[in-house]
Amino acid sequence: MPYRALNAQMIQELQDIAGTGNSKLDDESLYACSKDYTEDFSFKPEMVLIARDVEQISAIAAYCNTHRIPLTCRGAGTGLSGGCLPIMGGVVLSLEKLNRILKIDTDNFQAIVEPGVINEDLQQAVQQLGLFYPPDPASKGSCTLGGNIAHSSGGPRCVKYGTTRDYVLNLQVVLANGEIIETGANVLKNSTGYNLTQLMVGSEGTLGIVTRITLKLISYPPHRSLMLASFNSATQACACVAQIFHAGVHPSAIEFMDKKGVELSVRHQNLHFDFGEENAYLLIEVDAFGESDLMPQCEKIYEVLEKNGAANVLLADDNETKEKLWKIRRSIGEIVKLHSIYKEEDAVVTRSFLPDLYEGVMALSKQYGFDAICYGHAGDGNLHINILKNNMDEDAWNNKLPAAIREIFRMCKTYGGTISGEHGIGLVQKPYLDIVFNNSHFNLMQGIKKSFDPNLILNPGKIFEIKN
Amino acid sequence: MPYRALNAQMIQELQDIAGTGNSKLDDESLYACSKDYTEDFSFKPEMVLIARDVEQISAIAAYCNTHRIPLTCRGAGTGLSGGCLPIMGGVVLSLEKLNRILKIDTDNFQAIVEPGVINEDLQQAVQQLGLFYPPDPASKGSCTLGGNIAHSSGGPRCVKYGTTRDYVLNLQVVLANGEIIETGANVLKNSTGYNLTQLMVGSEGTLGIVTRITLKLISYPPHRSLMLASFNSATQACACVAQIFHAGVHPSAIEFMDKKGVELSVRHQNLHFDFGEENAYLLIEVDAFGESDLMPQCEKIYEVLEKNGAANVLLADDNETKEKLWKIRRSIGEIVKLHSIYKEEDAVVTRSFLPDLYEGVMALSKQYGFDAICYGHAGDGNLHINILKNNMDEDAWNNKLPAAIREIFRMCKTYGGTISGEHGIGLVQKPYLDIVFNNSHFNLMQGIKKSFDPNLILNPGKIFEIKN
Repeated sequence: MPYRALNAQMIQELQDIAGTGNSKLDDESLYACSKDYTEDFSFKPEMVLIARDVEQISAIAAYCNTHRIPLTCRGAGTGLSGGCLPIMGGVVLSLEKLNRILKIDTDNFQAIVEPGVINEDLQQAVQQLGLFYPPDPASKGSCTLGGNIAHSSGGPRCVKYGTTRDYVLNLQVVLANGEIIETGANVLKNSTGYNLTQLMVGSEGTLGIVTRITLKLISYPPHRSLMLASFNSATQACACVAQIFHAGVHPSAIEFMDKKGVELSVRHQNLHFDFGEENAYLLIEVDAFGESDLMPQCEKIYEVLEKNGAANVLLADDNETKEKLWKIRRSIGEIVKLHSIYKEEDAVVTRSFLPDLYEGVMALSKQYGFDAICYGHAGDGNLHINILKNNMDEDAWNNKLPAAIREIFRMCKTYGGTISGEHGIGLVQKPYLDIVFNNSHFNLMQGIKKSFDPNLILNPGKIFEIKN
Repeated sequence: MPYRALNAQMIQELQDIAGTGNSKLDDESLYACSKDYTEDFSFKPEMVLIARDVEQISAIAAYCNTHRIPLTCRGAGTGLSGGCLPIMGGVVLSLEKLNRILKIDTDNFQAIVEPGVINEDLQQAVQQLGLFYPPDPASKGSCTLGGNIAHSSGGPRCVKYGTTRDYVLNLQVVLANGEIIETGANVLKNSTGYNLTQLMVGSEGTLGIVTRITLKLISYPPHRSLMLASFNSATQACACVAQIFHAGVHPSAIEFMDKKGVELSVRHQNLHFDFGEENAYLLIEVDAFGESDLMPQCEKIYEVLEKNGAANVLLADDNETKEKLWKIRRSIGEIVKLHSIYKEEDAVVTRSFLPDLYEGVMALSKQYGFDAICYGHAGDGNLHINILKNNMDEDAWNNKLPAAIREIFRMCKTYGGTISGEHGIGLVQKPYLDIVFNNSHFNLMQGIKKSFDPNLILNPGKIFEIKN
């Protein structure tokens, strides 16, 4: 694609547009923006700009658009699909400093925020007012809401409360040509024209730059109980999930972990937790507005677990145990990363097929000789498959493993699912998109892309290949 | 636009494609498809085809696409924005016979249905299995799920459970050129490519023909209580809404009715209901899984109502009273229609501004000399404004009233809202879309439209004007 490399004049002009102190060219800054949490990828931009306000962003976009300069937005860089990596060079626009919570509207249960706000900062701010912003990716302490919108991020609580997209009411967006629009209105229902808001959510920075976000909030249920159940097999564990819903309980989290993940997490963190001899675990949380509403839910769940072959059930009734159990679950990804380069697949299937997917992955791991740690959101059918590089040689890693991943994603399709539930396609899943999309889809997506970004400057090279 | 009128050969070929018994040319059939529930509009198609299966629909679309024949889909024709009216002539494709519930998946809480299924038929079918499909337009007894998807329809329960779009997981769609795609997957979370599913929802049949729908279901809460509160002013009534949420209660409906609407509905139906001297009403429903969970919610609401100036509060504890109260609310629209031609505006604002919108409409009704009946979904900020024609002369109705409607919609924008919450833009709101959308929006929507339907055959003339 005919992108222009930055020359001295362009650099000067972009510096002038960005304003004093808002541009970086030093190697350290370029390197810092060359990476995210995805494998060991590194793609350096030619220049880093710091976003300060919507007018400045508009001017930067318009300049890049005129000069065909790749423009890739970046939040906290915690993504797992390479979504923010500037693989075509050009400008990285960091939105981290746009981090103000502009308004928490307690009458209307809405928050208006800038894209650089950390997920957990918003959660805590609204919680103090009795309100709740549920989406909670594992990286919630560091990831930004703008990044969450780019990938429609999820998290454990999404099984009860939905993912990021379910909370986005309206977006202020800078288009590739610098025009500034609002995609919708600050209302709970909207049948006015095409749904540009939800088209933007999950578009991974390829259609526009989100500069202000109106989010829906709900009431905060202050009470929660947590249970850990162990099972001899993943099949047994996952079979419980539908039964729990049938019992009329809607847990605020149903997390699946396999033995390897739990072992690694516990050992690494020295957590002194006896994980027994079982092979699979469900971590089940329920929440409520009244404390007395917890026990009846736990009892119903206990009954289901007992009837469906749980070996052990632990009810965490003190905060310390609850925190420990959540720490075991939430840290798995990070700890895997410390041990080995890994590929994380974000497979999602119709939830009753989760055991089939898990067994299928285990069979493939034997066939292809890879080591995998699996965990994820059982209530959503969303399994994170961490494939460890360990001692695998480069040829096997780069050239043979993709065939196994392809088989995993084919299984996802067979089981009613798709190749990403909450991480996005970005760079790493792009080669597999043909499993779930055909030429019709690619043509439609390309048409949309070209309507929004005719010069293809926004986050080029991501999600799907543009054909001429 | 260069649409071709049907000639004898085209009619013959379309009859052959549609199959025996699936095409109609008689005047009665054409007339039946010339109308919906919107004002007194009538636009006859040149031919009516009956959809039978996806292959047949694909062949019809491909033929119309090749020959530039307008193709407008129709469900039950209960729409309130003229969305299904074939204003450019051509073919109306009736989807009413595609009315099978294909699967209710109790393990995964999903239903797979054809677009012609009546909303209430699905509700009842899933309820028998303990499951719940919440979106409930006033026309639920007759409207189809395909039509609900076209406009992202709402209803009273959407304040707690969300609108149609929140339940659509995946769609099988026939594109204008006859290609058949699935927009997504049968999963609760999906970050795989652009969100074609949610782009289709609310696109009013202008982007594709929905031929199969995967819907999310939730557990059915079997118990409900209903309260009716009366107030001296709409402002007082609406001020209660935020307070109810603050009290930690999330009602399954909070409906607003003004005195005129209640009077008309009660009188017309001979319901023997003493509606007192107050000017505004809130109908508030709560639901629960356990019967004992109802009273605590009602008590909290009662406390809020009392503190915030409710004149009278009636708790409907028997089914007969509950049904009567719902009948009063649900029938208003229909009864208004029996009394006069009317325009129904589907105004939506950030909910705390609902009283301002209401007062603004009342002021305009005096200024412009029109009679208006208002009711709607107070918890969503969604006010249905029924403007009655009564004895207004044609000039005032056609030429002066639009200025008043324009002022109403400008207020909506000022109050954080937009011009349609759940009815869609269709034909009747199209002239007002420039209030909330600018050239950037129109360019984006046009780009999307042309990607999906380059020959502009699908439901031409709706939502926005295509520029060359």
